[in-house]
Amino acid sequence: MHSTGALLIDRLIAELPTDTVITDPASMDAYRWDRANDPNAGTPLAVVRATCTEDVQATVRLAAATGTAVIPRGAGSGLSGGSTAMDGAIVLSLDRMREIRIEPATRMAVVQPGAFNAEVKAAAAAQGLWYPPDPSSFEFCSIGGNVATNAGGLCCVKYGVTTDYVLGMTVVLADGRAVNLGGPRVKDVAGLSLTKLFVGSEGTLGVITEVILRLVPPQKPPTTLVASFPTLTGATDAVLAITRATRPSMLEFMDRPTIRAVEAATRMGLDTDAAAMLVIQSDDDPAVAAAEIAIIEQICIDNGTSECYLTADADEGEAFVQARRMAIPAVEKQGSILLEDVGVPIPRLGDLVLGIAAISAEHDITIAVLAHAGDGNTHPLLVFDPADDAQRQRAHVAYGEVMDLAIALGGTITGEHGVGRLKQPWLEDYLGPDVLELNERIKHALDPQGILNPGAVFARR
Amino acid sequence: MHSTGALLIDRLIAELPTDTVITDPASMDAYRWDRANDPNAGTPLAVVRATCTEDVQATVRLAAATGTAVIPRGAGSGLSGGSTAMDGAIVLSLDRMREIRIEPATRMAVVQPGAFNAEVKAAAAAQGLWYPPDPSSFEFCSIGGNVATNAGGLCCVKYGVTTDYVLGMTVVLADGRAVNLGGPRVKDVAGLSLTKLFVGSEGTLGVITEVILRLVPPQKPPTTLVASFPTLTGATDAVLAITRATRPSMLEFMDRPTIRAVEAATRMGLDTDAAAMLVIQSDDDPAVAAAEIAIIEQICIDNGTSECYLTADADEGEAFVQARRMAIPAVEKQGSILLEDVGVPIPRLGDLVLGIAAISAEHDITIAVLAHAGDGNTHPLLVFDPADDAQRQRAHVAYGEVMDLAIALGGTITGEHGVGRLKQPWLEDYLGPDVLELNERIKHALDPQGILNPGAVFARR
Repeated sequence: MHSTGALLIDRLIAELPTDTVITDPASMDAYRWDRANDPNAGTPLAVVRATCTEDVQATVRLAAATGTAVIPRGAGSGLSGGSTAMDGAIVLSLDRMREIRIEPATRMAVVQPGAFNAEVKAAAAAQGLWYPPDPSSFEFCSIGGNVATNAGGLCCVKYGVTTDYVLGMTVVLADGRAVNLGGPRVKDVAGLSLTKLFVGSEGTLGVITEVILRLVPPQKPPTTLVASFPTLTGATDAVLAITRATRPSMLEFMDRPTIRAVEAATRMGLDTDAAAMLVIQSDDDPAVAAAEIAIIEQICIDNGTSECYLTADADEGEAFVQARRMAIPAVEKQGSILLEDVGVPIPRLGDLVLGIAAISAEHDITIAVLAHAGDGNTHPLLVFDPADDAQRQRAHVAYGEVMDLAIALGGTITGEHGVGRLKQPWLEDYLGPDVLELNERIKHALDPQGILNPGAVFARR
Repeated sequence: MHSTGALLIDRLIAELPTDTVITDPASMDAYRWDRANDPNAGTPLAVVRATCTEDVQATVRLAAATGTAVIPRGAGSGLSGGSTAMDGAIVLSLDRMREIRIEPATRMAVVQPGAFNAEVKAAAAAQGLWYPPDPSSFEFCSIGGNVATNAGGLCCVKYGVTTDYVLGMTVVLADGRAVNLGGPRVKDVAGLSLTKLFVGSEGTLGVITEVILRLVPPQKPPTTLVASFPTLTGATDAVLAITRATRPSMLEFMDRPTIRAVEAATRMGLDTDAAAMLVIQSDDDPAVAAAEIAIIEQICIDNGTSECYLTADADEGEAFVQARRMAIPAVEKQGSILLEDVGVPIPRLGDLVLGIAAISAEHDITIAVLAHAGDGNTHPLLVFDPADDAQRQRAHVAYGEVMDLAIALGGTITGEHGVGRLKQPWLEDYLGPDVLELNERIKHALDPQGILNPGAVFARR
């Protein structure tokens, strides 16, 4: 190890509480990857497991003084490589900062970034309240990561995404100063909307050490409709008609490869001959929900559904939702996967799904498509045999073509996972040079040294 | 006129369509003020009434080339002086850009900035949809101004503020480039959240020439409860209990001076002896709304209401809402006013209202308080005789003290009107030097010459 690195480690250890700094390579290993599993992950100089905002400040100050890269990370559940470690960097883990304080009087939660989404939901529920955003990974993803990526989920079609629930935050800037942005107020327009700017900034502008979240009254037990379709077009046409006429609290899509993978893992009796399946919920008052689901069922019939199954039993409905949530791990059992997150305006969903099927056929790569169909956000999963180099190569080509297709259809390269390092090379194609330059100006204004999560979102300089 | 100004006018006239550039002082007069009525408004070099994005680009390019200030304006209904003209500046009016396109399939509206909020609501309603944000001025304020100030309104307590409905926009940058941010997608996390940054930026970062708004299904006819209270504390305690236990779609507050002003203007039989009155609505399904209003009525009784009036008739309820909306013009009949917009966390609402009463007594200035109580956002109206210099002086001192009080209570100096020029001197007290500097870094990164709305939000350099 060269001497500046050793000196930096000495100073980190000197300034931070005992057992906060990890430098043992074996112990650091767990902090080198997120769920993007980047094979090129580097080896950090040290991992700092911060216990409080002051620890984060001390770490960032030392990093700034030495020009050292800082890679913030929460639970490591990111899918775009936003927390992939770099050689010589400090990995700044927030996994020990997990306090949650619920304030029922103002319906807010004050949360440290390492708390899991599910823990926030549970703490809110204990006070008769609800935190809506629900990534499929909610049981093992952190709120800090959710805010950093502006995470979505299944209920977003009705309840919006993470940014819609963030009222304020404490953030450590690139020079180590800590600032409070926003606060426990629904309305605040004094100064630029910095809170909203930091949401979704993927650790490139600052390190979030506390967030203030808006909570809402609890969701009512949903009524669930599961509809199978003999054609992809029947399902996507139904999605468009449903979003136009009704307001479901969930509108999920799985294509045949996804249905088959889930059925293989669950044996719950899904229709494995269907081209696609929709899982739809309405969470209005029971009578209203029943009427809404009846409209939706008729739309499915009008679009050629082969089978509709309806249940007002919330637990039975949840079984189908869990089947949908386990789609990614189920498909992962079939090989290595490249996980997409492209989104399009709803009227283009059919073109996207058919176009992906064409890409799949052209490159002879299985692509299982699941989607938060109600907001046009799809997760095509490209499956390949890691031992088959040619297949891996084809999968990577197809991966890029799916993003190109989404852009061509007026869509985005990432709806809810973030750009990270995985999609950084495609960001300019999507944003165009002018908007990319605008992003870079803000990045440079807030992190002139470029020490915060270099290589994520923005190309390494 | 000095020659550079004359040259700039010549070039504006040469590059823009006929009848777009106004230089006649009498005709320009209508474009020098917004509703803040700043007595120090300057005289612009020219007013450009843009007809399209390209007109805005041409104007900003010429301004950039000559270092000329640009003051963007919509309908001129702003209350914080965000559109007050400056000597030698170009006033860039968007009042002719009023196209509205509703896309029912995706539940979106594509709107030019000069369209009125009420026109967007009407166009949405014609397609069975609803655009919720509802400033009291909705009949004469523009969407561009709403987005520029992140405007609020009465339904925000349940439905959120303008930023929650903005999915994308076209904006002309300080160098004249036009960029598209966001788009017709509920989920998009590719790059920094620039759309959200531009919402509420008050024309200091760019000029918005088109916005994409999210629409929702229509609101149901509300049930309305009007409750009078013999004490301010009874009313504010009721507000806290109501927001904790229920989710009204409106929760408005008027104190005695406000009630009396409205009664004088309307003769609708309001209780002019009450210390305060709440106007509360629930817009759930009728049976659910009835149950919610019953809970709210009981809370009002528990907090000592002197009279509760309940109606499930939407038109009758709307009469009370209109009474509330006309509170500002009603109070304006009593003298000149200084209009406040301070907000606090709900549990501090009582302290704020009582503190304002103390400031009123100390300075012998009538302060009529109306409030979007359910989100802690208040509009104290300081009334003074414009012919009485001493009173005017006291009113201005009290105006500052109200902001100081809000800051001391953990609140904001502006909840929904914006900082503009009127509140710019207080912004640093509220944000603190670090957050202000963060704001300035972003301003400088996006408008290095400082030509966009100088003096609004940021001090003139």
